[in-house]
Amino acid sequence: AISMAFAPLLILLDDKVLQPRLAPKAQKRAPDAIDERDAEVIIAGHGRFGMTIVRLLQANGRRTVVLDHDAEQIEALRKFGFRIYYGDASRLDLLEAAGAKNAKVFVIAIDDRERALAIAETVLRNFPHLRVVARAWDRVHAYQLLNSGVHAVYREVFGTSVDVARDVLTALGQHPFEAQRAAALFKAHDEQLVRVSAAHQLDQTKLIDISRTARAEIANVLAQDVGEK
Amino acid sequence: AISMAFAPLLILLDDKVLQPRLAPKAQKRAPDAIDERDAEVIIAGHGRFGMTIVRLLQANGRRTVVLDHDAEQIEALRKFGFRIYYGDASRLDLLEAAGAKNAKVFVIAIDDRERALAIAETVLRNFPHLRVVARAWDRVHAYQLLNSGVHAVYREVFGTSVDVARDVLTALGQHPFEAQRAAALFKAHDEQLVRVSAAHQLDQTKLIDISRTARAEIANVLAQDVGEK
Repeated sequence: AISMAFAPLLILLDDKVLQPRLAPKAQKRAPDAIDERDAEVIIAGHGRFGMTIVRLLQANGRRTVVLDHDAEQIEALRKFGFRIYYGDASRLDLLEAAGAKNAKVFVIAIDDRERALAIAETVLRNFPHLRVVARAWDRVHAYQLLNSGVHAVYREVFGTSVDVARDVLTALGQHPFEAQRAAALFKAHDEQLVRVSAAHQLDQTKLIDISRTARAEIANVLAQDVGEK
Repeated sequence: AISMAFAPLLILLDDKVLQPRLAPKAQKRAPDAIDERDAEVIIAGHGRFGMTIVRLLQANGRRTVVLDHDAEQIEALRKFGFRIYYGDASRLDLLEAAGAKNAKVFVIAIDDRERALAIAETVLRNFPHLRVVARAWDRVHAYQLLNSGVHAVYREVFGTSVDVARDVLTALGQHPFEAQRAAALFKAHDEQLVRVSAAHQLDQTKLIDISRTARAEIANVLAQDVGEK
């Protein structure tokens, strides 16, 4: 195996020599050469979702590195002190150069369902010491990610929609503490339900027709809601 | 003015007689005839976002009515006791039949940015007693909604991404209470920032090139983050 010390150089070589010959014309830019060793958290994706995470972590003094597939805005973000690099987060060389061996947490924050699963697979296989958490589209995507070995999943609009419901309860006259408690209970319960369901859905989530599975799943969830009353 | 008692009949007439002549072929189904008077909350949109809200509200005994533009799955949901109706939530007759005059809160939970603004405009103009809260795509959409008069906005992935960052802080060794406090502070601060920025962005949000505004806005936000350190 080649020493890690050469990894950034290899990526540079790859960028300057190989990628221009292999890459389709549409790809405007080859992956950045990076050499990060001290990041605690690596975040794949700097869109609406990843941006909030990196801002909150940086505000709390945490060393983060961001990888993104979209070249736009990267230069601007760097001016604000973000360590952000262009490249495909499912590429092993890029993950190594980003400091995956020394990091503690890996956050998959992209909005592409299939690519999220591919990144999860690569990261979990090659860096088993990392805690891997992922943004999920919906319940069924959450099952897929959990069944691929991801340690925690976050359905992308779930947290916000619980916040809305909590504030509606308050607007209807419920005491804020009580509304907060009702929301927290619902949230914890539903997140537990996702974990339990994932374990029972190994086969179903392999179905090609994911949207049909998603529709059937809503009926399952509602049936459970009713059963608990 | 025609008495509200006839509203459902008028909608039926509209559905059976007028709509089939006026509607484009693509529209598979005319709006449902409904007559709800006791709903406390009306929710436009029963997708990933609206569904969580209605489940949490129903679990807490709140009377809700859901309006949705997508005919799929409505029948199935009704079997689970959801009051859900098919139709365009920016239609005044449908809003009246759904009980907008007696409801207290209106939640815009759809994922169509332009239609969300249209619904906000109709609801605010015709039912000024309603508290109107809305799902927003991003900061710029949040500004647009606030500037249209909506009482509260919720960026759709913001709450969840704050949850992720909080749990990452905990995974890195921060005490859960401390991580929770850091997340709550960041969230409150950023939501305040959205309100303040909206008031200063009346002109900018009128730009046709919303995506360019959104990119410029990220730079503004980061500059403010840095300035506060």
